[in-house]
Parts: sequence; structure tokens; C-alpha cells
Amino acid sequence: MKELFTDRARFSNWLEIEVLSTEAHAELGVVPADQAATVRQRMPQVDDAFVMAVDEREATTNHDVAAFVDVVQALIGPPAGNWVHQGLTSSDVVDTAQCMALAQAAEVLLDAIGLLIATSRDLAEANRATVMVGRTHGIHAEPTTFGVKAALWTLQLGRDRDRLRRARKAIAVGKLSGAVGTYSNIDPAVERYVCGALSLEPVPSTQVIARDRHAEYLYACASIGSTIEMIATEIRHLQRTEVGEVLEPFGKGQKGSSAMPHKRNPIIAERLSGLARILRGYLGAGLEDVALWHERDISHSSVERVILPDASMLGHYCIVKLTALLAGLTVNNKRMLDNLESSYGLVFSQPVLLALVASGRTRDDSYRIVQRNALRAWDEHTAFRQLLENDDEVTLSPEQLDDAFDLERSLQHSSRIFDQLREMT
Amino acid sequence: MKELFTDRARFSNWLEIEVLSTEAHAELGVVPADQAATVRQRMPQVDDAFVMAVDEREATTNHDVAAFVDVVQALIGPPAGNWVHQGLTSSDVVDTAQCMALAQAAEVLLDAIGLLIATSRDLAEANRATVMVGRTHGIHAEPTTFGVKAALWTLQLGRDRDRLRRARKAIAVGKLSGAVGTYSNIDPAVERYVCGALSLEPVPSTQVIARDRHAEYLYACASIGSTIEMIATEIRHLQRTEVGEVLEPFGKGQKGSSAMPHKRNPIIAERLSGLARILRGYLGAGLEDVALWHERDISHSSVERVILPDASMLGHYCIVKLTALLAGLTVNNKRMLDNLESSYGLVFSQPVLLALVASGRTRDDSYRIVQRNALRAWDEHTAFRQLLENDDEVTLSPEQLDDAFDLERSLQHSSRIFDQLREMT
Amino acid sequence: MKELFTDRARFSNWLEIEVLSTEAHAELGVVPADQAATVRQRMPQVDDAFVMAVDEREATTNHDVAAFVDVVQALIGPPAGNWVHQGLTSSDVVDTAQCMALAQAAEVLLDAIGLLIATSRDLAEANRATVMVGRTHGIHAEPTTFGVKAALWTLQLGRDRDRLRRARKAIAVGKLSGAVGTYSNIDPAVERYVCGALSLEPVPSTQVIARDRHAEYLYACASIGSTIEMIATEIRHLQRTEVGEVLEPFGKGQKGSSAMPHKRNPIIAERLSGLARILRGYLGAGLEDVALWHERDISHSSVERVILPDASMLGHYCIVKLTALLAGLTVNNKRMLDNLESSYGLVFSQPVLLALVASGRTRDDSYRIVQRNALRAWDEHTAFRQLLENDDEVTLSPEQLDDAFDLERSLQHSSRIFDQLREMT
Amino acid sequence: MKELFTDRARFSNWLEIEVLSTEAHAELGVVPADQAATVRQRMPQVDDAFVMAVDEREATTNHDVAAFVDVVQALIGPPAGNWVHQGLTSSDVVDTAQCMALAQAAEVLLDAIGLLIATSRDLAEANRATVMVGRTHGIHAEPTTFGVKAALWTLQLGRDRDRLRRARKAIAVGKLSGAVGTYSNIDPAVERYVCGALSLEPVPSTQVIARDRHAEYLYACASIGSTIEMIATEIRHLQRTEVGEVLEPFGKGQKGSSAMPHKRNPIIAERLSGLARILRGYLGAGLEDVALWHERDISHSSVERVILPDASMLGHYCIVKLTALLAGLTVNNKRMLDNLESSYGLVFSQPVLLALVASGRTRDDSYRIVQRNALRAWDEHTAFRQLLENDDEVTLSPEQLDDAFDLERSLQHSSRIFDQLREMT
Repeated sequence: MKELFTDRARFSNWLEIEVLSTEAHAELGVVPADQAATVRQRMPQVDDAFVMAVDEREATTNHDVAAFVDVVQALIGPPAGNWVHQGLTSSDVVDTAQCMALAQAAEVLLDAIGLLIATSRDLAEANRATVMVGRTHGIHAEPTTFGVKAALWTLQLGRDRDRLRRARKAIAVGKLSGAVGTYSNIDPAVERYVCGALSLEPVPSTQVIARDRHAEYLYACASIGSTIEMIATEIRHLQRTEVGEVLEPFGKGQKGSSAMPHKRNPIIAERLSGLARILRGYLGAGLEDVALWHERDISHSSVERVILPDASMLGHYCIVKLTALLAGLTVNNKRMLDNLESSYGLVFSQPVLLALVASGRTRDDSYRIVQRNALRAWDEHTAFRQLLENDDEVTLSPEQLDDAFDLERSLQHSSRIFDQLREMT
Repeated sequence: MKELFTDRARFSNWLEIEVLSTEAHAELGVVPADQAATVRQRMPQVDDAFVMAVDEREATTNHDVAAFVDVVQALIGPPAGNWVHQGLTSSDVVDTAQCMALAQAAEVLLDAIGLLIATSRDLAEANRATVMVGRTHGIHAEPTTFGVKAALWTLQLGRDRDRLRRARKAIAVGKLSGAVGTYSNIDPAVERYVCGALSLEPVPSTQVIARDRHAEYLYACASIGSTIEMIATEIRHLQRTEVGEVLEPFGKGQKGSSAMPHKRNPIIAERLSGLARILRGYLGAGLEDVALWHERDISHSSVERVILPDASMLGHYCIVKLTALLAGLTVNNKRMLDNLESSYGLVFSQPVLLALVASGRTRDDSYRIVQRNALRAWDEHTAFRQLLENDDEVTLSPEQLDDAFDLERSLQHSSRIFDQLREMT
Repeated sequence: MKELFTDRARFSNWLEIEVLSTEAHAELGVVPADQAATVRQRMPQVDDAFVMAVDEREATTNHDVAAFVDVVQALIGPPAGNWVHQGLTSSDVVDTAQCMALAQAAEVLLDAIGLLIATSRDLAEANRATVMVGRTHGIHAEPTTFGVKAALWTLQLGRDRDRLRRARKAIAVGKLSGAVGTYSNIDPAVERYVCGALSLEPVPSTQVIARDRHAEYLYACASIGSTIEMIATEIRHLQRTEVGEVLEPFGKGQKGSSAMPHKRNPIIAERLSGLARILRGYLGAGLEDVALWHERDISHSSVERVILPDASMLGHYCIVKLTALLAGLTVNNKRMLDNLESSYGLVFSQPVLLALVASGRTRDDSYRIVQRNALRAWDEHTAFRQLLENDDEVTLSPEQLDDAFDLERSLQHSSRIFDQLREMT
Repeated sequence: MKELFTDRARFSNWLEIEVLSTEAHAELGVVPADQAATVRQRMPQVDDAFVMAVDEREATTNHDVAAFVDVVQALIGPPAGNWVHQGLTSSDVVDTAQCMALAQAAEVLLDAIGLLIATSRDLAEANRATVMVGRTHGIHAEPTTFGVKAALWTLQLGRDRDRLRRARKAIAVGKLSGAVGTYSNIDPAVERYVCGALSLEPVPSTQVIARDRHAEYLYACASIGSTIEMIATEIRHLQRTEVGEVLEPFGKGQKGSSAMPHKRNPIIAERLSGLARILRGYLGAGLEDVALWHERDISHSSVERVILPDASMLGHYCIVKLTALLAGLTVNNKRMLDNLESSYGLVFSQPVLLALVASGRTRDDSYRIVQRNALRAWDEHTAFRQLLENDDEVTLSPEQLDDAFDLERSLQHSSRIFDQLREMT
């Protein structure tokens, strides 16, 4: 991913666009065919020396593309070299090249998220029957399975993949339409030729491609970041000492704390939680970039030099790290069951309530009866079921109570979520 | 739009879900058919008295849905009333109802943006031939037309409409799967029945629907806001005293300034610029809502009570206001031409450069010659062409200069952008 | 707080400024003294009828201050009424009045935060000796006290109070310097007179007061919000089922969940966590408002109508709610001790490490010995100390181990934090 | 500025803290005095080899401070080396060191902003009498001077300097209080000793220093960024072709556009406008970092590695660039006067209005008369004064009109703003 945003990668993209554009002009008869061929033949190697030459020249021109064109023309030599940049404005080259890089970055992200989805799905399938307590507000609610959790993560990651695919489509575009987008000194055929060769969609534009497209890419990154934050937060919760239901991978020889040798901390999950914050910040900046002045101002450029590579790299880092975390996650089934049981059977309060209602009591009455026993169970560390059995107002048969406290019954429909996993594409 | 987010609208949605759910339970044989019918028959009117009754009850329960259910059950009366909320958890009702409201809000936004797009397209078509100067960096660049500007706005609004359609799809979902999404005490058939009746897609969830969906809705609003900011910024620029190319509608009797009677200010466009800032802030909050704890925490709820109605209403307001602004915009063709000519013909510097290159000079040489004359034209308030004619180094024939300075030539391909307008759907 | 931002409050502030300004002009001899006196005498009541009259008039003028001035002049009647708004521009009135409201809002916030600080300090003092486990990364680290936690909250709230005081100073300013801030048609003495009477600092400005001041106010709100989020997050953690160390206040008759009668959820703390997200979003919008065009544009105005009242009211709501929460918090000392002991004495791993180092082993060696026993204690549910005693490599005397595992020793310096509480002002 | 955030700088700070801490422990008699002396003597050079050694070691420990301590201890050698890190937890070192770097960064920013303020003040003083039109809503309002503009910038920069000074104070703190801030295994005297030697204020903390402090630093950066954006936006406006009142410095040989040789674009000002967006995004992330879990989680760390150096460096870059821009700004007095006159004298509409009111007409009547003539002047390109003279309803004497249209009168009080410049410190 890092490779896509180096100076070398950038200049390579620029050069390919310049050469393709010269060829397109040759097809139109504007540039002599042999000179276009010469341009292609003498196309310089974009190596460190090349980058340095452009940097040096920029010290004079104070304009990066002008410097780049000067260097390329000199390396190809006249007369062929003079045709380079024919009819183009800087943004034809720079903006199209940036979209090339972003489309490639989106591909890398899509590959990575594909792997993450597969890993998350495997985790879900492997834990279809791993029973644990479901928690709302951090409080025990009802039983669930770890598989259900991971299945929901997988589906959400799938939605983020869709967002990224759409962002890729939004950003895989190009423009070679001149200074204000009117093709004043360039034939639209050049745009079609160059974009076609680069698998980019040619789009109407001002001097630059509209920035709502880049903002959509940043939104896709921020959304993935927030989903990863959600998963990471879950893992941090499940790993805390009092819960202890999962453990991040922990290497041999690793030190959890320089001072406290007993510590195994969920540091990867914590790191992932944090990085989502930066990705959100980048999206805000990207949306502010949309309202450029007239046919463009260049205020977006300095912003994008920071946020587009950073968002791509951070997004990729988060995806890859989470994949490894999920692949190496230790799931402590025993602890999950222990925790489930630690709340005295209160997680079955709803079926008891429903049974009381079904037996003819009003809902409000039933609620008070169940709540009374529930709070007492908690305060007195007593089994909820036992209290119910001793409560004269609870007129349920042992079979009805068996049914209410039946774990299997409560999870009988939970596999429905897994059906959707199979439909993901 | 405001109507969709009142207490009455909210409770109406809740009630419809409760009644549908009772019917679905009747189909399953859980609720006696006649009692479900009674529930439907005695379904209370959601009027101000109803809202007040729920509010009063909430003072005791400190839980809005519990209060609502208590009131509905009392109004329907036992035994039928007792079946209301059977097997449901609050979020089954609240979250599904909120998505109903958001799907409706998205419809309202889509209708409004459709009108805005039509208005913007009309403006574009009407100004296909309205020549003006294109500006980059705020500096005259090359000629364009006002129609091209408006056409690009239209296309961008079209992309925002697509984003909104996708957001609508993301948010038009429902869940009736119980306390932690496992259908522990409710048959999945109920979810299918209720969502089917409401045209919502039933989706796997925790206690609540995943918040990446709501964030996508907020993203769609923020993106529209930023596009509108872009258009508004353009209008503010074009209306400034020194430019004077367009004028916002200005009513009879309107006072531009309480102190300065001569003022006609682009205040609508300014207001629209500002509101985009709030919409961006709401998106940030929405993305922070994604990482709920475990099977849900309720931190998102207070946030959403502010930002979901506000983002919907502000987004709608911006769209409607911009539509009126564009429909009533005064375009000053004469001033546009005056301004175009005010820069001494410098807007044709690129075709002169290209002609010099075509005549055999190196690009760098040609550049220096053109730049020298251009800066002199500006400093000395002299026609650029005249200086070129007097410059010995400029070896171009009068015909070549005619061609370079030909406005029609420079705009010959600009209609290409309009082709895409016709393809919008 | 809400009262400060009604239309009535706004118009009252406007009116006071207008009348003071007429008096100031009378002192300068511009307005006849008796007519200024008449203006003061006939100063209309700002009631609902007044508000309605202005609204009606605005339908014509499309300018709120112009409408307001028309109504006031008519109510006072000529000739005295004609002197109203003498030499002023709308912003002299509107912007100064808004700062009046914000300075008052800051006062309300300062009062509220003073109470919160006192409540938090009381909680700290009351729990100086309430021993509990300190946690880093969600993992047991070393013992601490609940008092230390609350003391640190208190100090941080104190820093936020300082920020709010500075924000109050930044915003308690006024300007009556005309259309572009040059006092073109108004004597600077008027500004001094009016601001003096309102206890505002007169400041140089463009047409409007610089928006970095308003952004500072929003920063103070966002910072308080984030501190409250931190405290609320702590409480949510401590209340979760597996931890159970504190409980939010829970009213008689309250329903924790409509479906699960056993639930006691930290819903206030969750709500407070959420609201911080909105406050951050408002700050972003406020900072975007800083870069107004030239001597002002009005893009900030629509933004501020939403975010300034909302930030003030949300900020106030958060402070008040947290105060009640802390005042009614149930602290479960017994559970705190149980949890502390539940990690087998691992919280003393650092003093054991230090003792081993002091006994002559290298740090790395000592670390491995302690880590080995610590992980084993955890895995085998065995007392850490017992494992150490049985480990031949651990060459510590019983007295040395006693000292390492001494809770009092570990907390002997913790009271230092409380010294700083007493210095808060 | 960059130097402050390298690995070498970081490790240097860490090492200094470790060595000071060993010395402090020697004073307490915990570490033998001669071994502390040895630690100081053998204190390794933090060069590239050192950095590499730590990196290598970290591959094993997966913990940076543990790796660092291992390397330092090995380089110093036993037994003295074993005392390194005595009683410390990683955060004692890392967090205190980070604050050292931030305090230094704040100093660098303060130096730079001091220079910017001086430059801006010089520009203001030099242009005290440079008359130009003041604009509100982008529309001509009343006359002002360029000096007034720059004076207001200067005052706002002064407020940002105050914010930065306070942020410096907030961040120039340190903590050596162990794993959860209770000084469990370390004497508070060590913290006092080390912080004293480093000119940091020792502060109560959890494992880490509270993050509201870091957020305040980021706020100061974001506020400066927004002020710079405001100034840059002004310059962009003043440089646009139709206005042409100022010009950014433009180097010899510079190319404004690769395609259009006539262009001189305000690219520095545009770049500065953009960077403010990133700084706002960083502040959002920084505020999200405040709510760490319990005695700390490490989610802030990855965020801070990006945003603290970046915010410091971008902030510094913006300040330095704006200083150069203002120092080299070309001010076109002639064009300023031309523009002022281009609006037909409408900028004097308010004194005419006031004169009419003073002559006995109602304000509303007077307004309509002035507005009518003003709009006509604009539409018919006629001098406003001439129209007034020909309007029978305008009953003002030539002397009264002279006074209304007197530029000097309108600017007579504008120097008041400069008085405040002299009070800045």
C-alpha cells in the first residue's frame, strides 16, 4: 500500500499519462506518429535519480508538474520531447494519476477486507454453538453465542466492502479536458484514449475531478474504521479481567507491561479502537475539500497529500491487524459458560415474564413479580429459579419453568443469522 | 419533514408495529385470533392526549417504551391488551420505527433533490451558450459557459442522489428479534410479517440495528450538504461587487442591510454554505455511534434524537432553498462578457503557447515568451494580442493568432458535458 | 439555560442595546436628551405580541433587525423613535446581544460545574479509603481507591472550569463600530458607554466580532463533554454485571427493560457518553466559522443559531445530570474488595519484581520468573504468593513477601492526590 | 520541529528520565549512590545504532519500553544497569517524555507565532493609511484601510498565542507515580526530583497524564490553523483577477500554471486554507482520546503517534509560510482606490441615510429613498451622489452631501484599533 504513494509511483503514473496522451494525439494527427513512438521509446526510467532531478528543477519553477515536464522533455530530447504535455494542463495529469493510485489502493483494501471477512466468517462458523451471555448496557441480558457475534461482524464488514466497492467506482475516473474542463485545446478523444488504456471512466470536470468522489473514498475508510473499532471494543470488553472470555494473540517472550509481569493486555484491539478516530478526522477534512472555488482552487491538494495516503495506509493496517487478531483469538468457552451462570439465571427473566402473561396476568403485574424476584436474586446471590418456585404469586408449573429456563429453546432460532453469511458476495 | 419526527409520528409508528406484531403472533397461534382482532379494532388514536398520557406514565417508569406499552394496554383493555408487546423487546419497536421514519425522510429528501436536479439542469440548458470566464485559483483561466458550470453541479447532485438512494436502502430495514437478536422469545416469522407489511427489509441484528446504516444516512446528508456548499460558494463569488455576474433573488421591500441601503447580499447562499458545517459535524457523531458495547448500549440514542431529525430537516431545508435560489437566479450575460474581456485576452495564453510549440520552439522557450507578454499585458493594461504582434520572437501568422484567440474554437467541445445530463436517472 | 436563547430573550437584549446606544448618542449631543429619555420611557415590553409583530414585519423586509427596528420605532413613535438604531449597523446590535447571551450562558455553566466539582470532591473524600483494583487496558493492574479516581475526575473538571472561565472572558465582549468596524458613522464613545453598561469588553472588530472567540466557547463545552464522557464511561464499566462495583441511581417503579425485568442499566452514564459526540461536532462547525470573508459574511449565522444554544443546553444538561448521578451513586465496597482479590494477588507482581531485582538478580531474569508464576496463577486459579513460595528461583524471605503483598504499603502515598483538591479555586 | 519527534529524540528523552530517576532513587537511598553515578557516566549515546538495537529487541518483547530498558541495561552493564527503570512503569517514562517534546514543540510554535505577529503588525502599521473598500457578504460596504484588516489579524493571532501559552502550561507536566498513579512502588520525591530537573509540573494522574491536556494543545493548533485560514482566505479574495488588490510573492522563473503562462495564483494562501481542515480533524481525534478506560487504555497512543507530531509540524509550517507570505506581499494601493470608486459612491449610503433621518424624515422613508437611488446608481452605472442631487425628495444641502461623501470623516476613528496593537505582549 505504501508503494502506491511514493514519489516514484506518482511520477510513474504521471509519465504513463503523458506518454499515452502523446500517442492519442498522434492518432489524431496532431503529433507526428514517429515522434510519439520516440516518446514511448525514450520514456525515462522513474528511479531515484529521476525524482531528484524533478525536485531540483522544482526549486526554480515552484511548480511540480512544470518541473516534471521540463525534466521529461530534456531526457527525451527535441523534437519529440517537445510534444510531451501537448494540450494538457497540470491537473489532467495530476488528478488522473491520483485517481489511478486511489483505484489501486481501493483494490488493495478490497483484497484485504476479503480476507478479513473470510476470517471473521470462519470464526463465526467455528463458534456457532459457543454459548455465552449476551449483554446490553454492559449488563447480562439473554444467552447468545459467540458465533452470532462474529456473524454480525461479518455481515457489517460485508456492507463496508460494498461501500468500498462503490467508492472504488466513484474514484476510478480520469479527466483530460484542459484548464477549465472545456477541452479547449484538447480533443475529447484524447481523454477517451488515455482513460480507456488505464481502465478509468472519463468524467466531465472542471480543471479537476469533483471532490465528492474523494470524500466518498474517505467515507468508506472511515466506515470500515468504525466497524473495526466496534469489533475491537468488543474484544477489549471480553478480555477484561472480570470477563476473561477471549484473549488476543500473545507472542512468546512478549512483555505485557514493563512494570507488571502478570499483564496480558488487548493492545492490538486498543490500537485499532484509536485509529478509527483519525479516519473520522480525515473524512471531515475530505468533505471540506468539496467546495472548491470556481473551476478549482488548490486548497485541497495539501490536505490530500496527507489524508489520502494516510487514510489508505491506516485503513489497510487496521484491516490486516484485525485479520491476524481474529485468526489468533483464544476463545475461552468454559469462562463464557461460567459467566453466563454467574447471574443466577436472570438471563431467563423474559420467558418467565411471558409465561406469567400467558397464564393470564396483566403484563404490568407480571413485570413487577419478575422484577422483584430478579433484584432479590442479585442482591442475595440466590438462584432466580429457586426464588420463583418459592413465590406464591408465581403460578407456573415445573414444566413451564423448565421451558422458560431452557437454554436450547432460547437459542433455537439463532442460526438464522448464519443463513445470510452464505449469501455474501 | 418536520412531521416525521414529532412524538405523535413516533408513537404512531410504534403502535403500528405493536399491532402488526400481535397479528403476526395470531397467525402463529400464540395470540388468539379474536384478541389480535380486538387489538387492531381498539387501536387508540395517537393524538396529543395520547402523547401526554405516555409522558405522564414515563415519569414513573423512567422508560419510554414501558410507559407506552402500559398506556396502550390500558386503552385496549384486558384481556386483548395484555398481548400487546408479546415477545418483543423495546428495541424491536423503537429501532424499527426509527428506520421507518428515516426511510420516509429519505423519500422526502429524494423528492426534493429530484426537483433540485431538474432546476439545475434547466439552468444548465438555458445557459449552454452563456459565455463567461473560467477561473482557477480565483484567477482568470480560460473561457467557459455558465451552462457548463450548472451541468457539473447537476451531475454532482445526481451522484448525491445515488448516495441517498443507497442510504435509503441501508436504512429501510427492521428487526424484531428480541433482547439480543437471537429470536429467543419470538418466532422469526413475526419479523418477516411485520417488516413485510412495512416494506422494510428484515435484518440480523443485536438488540439494535447496526449503526453503520444510520451513519451512511448521515454521510448522504453531509455529502449533499457539501455539494450545496460548493454551489452556494460559487454563487457568492459570482455575486460579489467586482464580479457581479449573478444575483440571488431579492424580494420587493427587502432590506439588504439595516444600515446600508445600497446592499444586495447573497444571504441565502451564505446560509447554505454555513449549514454544511453542521451536517459534517453530525456525520462525525454518527460514526462514533457505530462502536456500541456488546449487544448494544444506549449511548447512541441521545445523539440520534438530536442529529437524525436535525440532519434530515437541515438537509431538506438546504435542498429546497437552493432550488428556489437557482430557479430565481438572475444571470448577467453582459457582465460575464465584460469580465471575460477585462483580462486583455490573457485567457488565450495556452493556445498561443501551443501554437508556438507547434511552430518548432521548445516548450520552455515558448512558455517564457508567452509569460513575458502576459505579465506585461496585465501590468500595462494592454491587449495581449497586440503585444504578441509586436514581439519579434513571436513568429505566428495573423491566421494562427486568429485561431488562438477564437472563442468559438475554445468552446467547441464544451457541449460534451451536456450529453451526460441526458443519461441521468 | 433555555430561557437565554428564546426570541424574547434575544429581542430584549437587542432592545437594551438600542436604548443604551440612544442614550450614549444623547450624551454626545447627537440625539436630543429629551428624545433619548422618551425612548427609554416608551421602551416596549418584549412579550409574545412583540415577537409576533417583528416576525410579521420580517416577512416583508426579509431582514430581522430591519424588521425589529421598524417595530420598535413604530411603538415608540416619532420623533423620538426615529433616533433608534442611529449610526448602528445590524451587527452592532445582533453580535453584541449574542455575546451577552453567551456570557450569561457561561455563567450558568460555571455555576453548574461548581456544583459538579463539589459533588465529585465529596465523593472523592468519602471514598479515600475505599480500596479497589486499578485497571489498565481493562486488566487488573495494582490496587487503588475509588477516592483517587474521583479526585482525578475532580481535578480534571477543575481544568475544564478554567477553560470555561477563559471562554467566558473571550466571549464577554461587544462592538458598536459600524458596518466594517471603522466607527465611520458612530463615535467610539458609544461603544464604550453601551459595553460598559453591559459589563462587556469593547473590542476592535470587522462588522462582527471575530469567531475565534465563539469557537473557544464551543471548545470549552466540548472539553467538558469529553471529561464527562470519561467519567460516564468509567461508571458504565464499573456497573457492568461482571464488575458490579457501582450502581447508578434507580428510581422506585423504574423499568430497566421492557422485556427483561431483571435489568438495572447505567442509562444516564450511557446518555452522557453519547452527548459528548455532538459537542465535538459543534466545535468542528464553530472552527469552520472562523474564516469569514472580508469584513464578514453571514454563513456563520445559521450555524450559530443551531450550535450555540444547543451546545450550551447540552453542556448544561450533561453537567446537571452527572451531578445527580454522582450524588446518588451506590458504591459497593464489598464487591470492590472481592474483585481485587479475584486475581489471585497478581496485582502485587511489581513489588515482587522489584524485590527480586533488589536481591541482586537482573531485571530481565526477575521479569521472567515473575511472569511465569503470574501466568500460572491465572491459568490454574491459584494464589500467586503460594506459587512464589514454592518456586526455588524465588529467593525472597517471608518478610520480603509480606512487604510486597502489603496493601497498605502500596497505597501509602495515594493521599497525595487529595492535597491538590484542597488547592482548587 | 521535525527533530523533536524522531525516534532519537524520543529515546533521548526516555533516557534522561531514566537516569534522573535513578539519581532520585539514589538520593532516597534506594539505589546506591555510586551505582547511580555509574548509570549517569555510562549513559549511552542515542544514535542510529542505539535506535536499531531497541527496534531489534522490540521484535521479541513486542513492547517498546521493555525493549528500551533491556538495551540500556545491557549497555550500562550490571550491577548498576539493573537499577535502571527502578520502580517505574512504562508510562512514567513515555508519557513524561512525550510532554517534554510537546512543551518544546509549543516553544517552537510560540517563537514562530511571535515572528508572525511582528510581521503582521508591521504590515498593519505600514498600511494605516492604505484606503480600500470594506466588504461584507462580498459586497462593497464602506471604506476601510488595509492597515485595519492587518491590525485585526494581528490581534487575533495574539489571542491564539495566548491559547498556545496556556496549552503549553497544560502540557508541560510530568508523572512518575507508577502503574495506576498511586506511587505504589515509588516515592513521590522521585517525581518531584525528575520533573523539577526537566522544568515540568508534577501532576496527579492515572497510569497516564489526563488527555484533556493534549486535546488543549491540539485545540490551540486548530485555532491557529483557523485564524491562518481566515487570513489566507482574505488574501485569496484580494488577489482574484477582478479584485487584484494584493499579490502573493512570486519567484523569478516560477511557473504559475504548466498550461497557462499568464497565471499568478495565490497558491500559498490556498495551501494554508486547506491545512486548517486537517488540524480540525486532529482536534476531533484528540478529544475522542480523553475518555480512556479506567486507569488508562492504550487506544490514544496510535492516534497520538500520528496527530501530535503532524499537528505540531503542520501548525509550524502554516505559521512560517504565512509569515513569509505577509512579509513579501505586494499591496496595490492604486487598484484599491479604483475598486473603491467603482461602486459609484454607494459606500456612502449610510451617512446619506443618517443625514436624511437627522433632517427629520422617518428612518423607513429615508431608507427607501436611499435604496431607490442606490439600486439605480448600480443599474445605470451612474454616480450615486449625482442621482441624489437630482432627487427632489433628497432635501440635503451640498455641504451635508459633502460631509456624507467625505472619506476622511468616515475613517477618522479607524486608528483606534491600532492603539490595541501596542498593548499586545
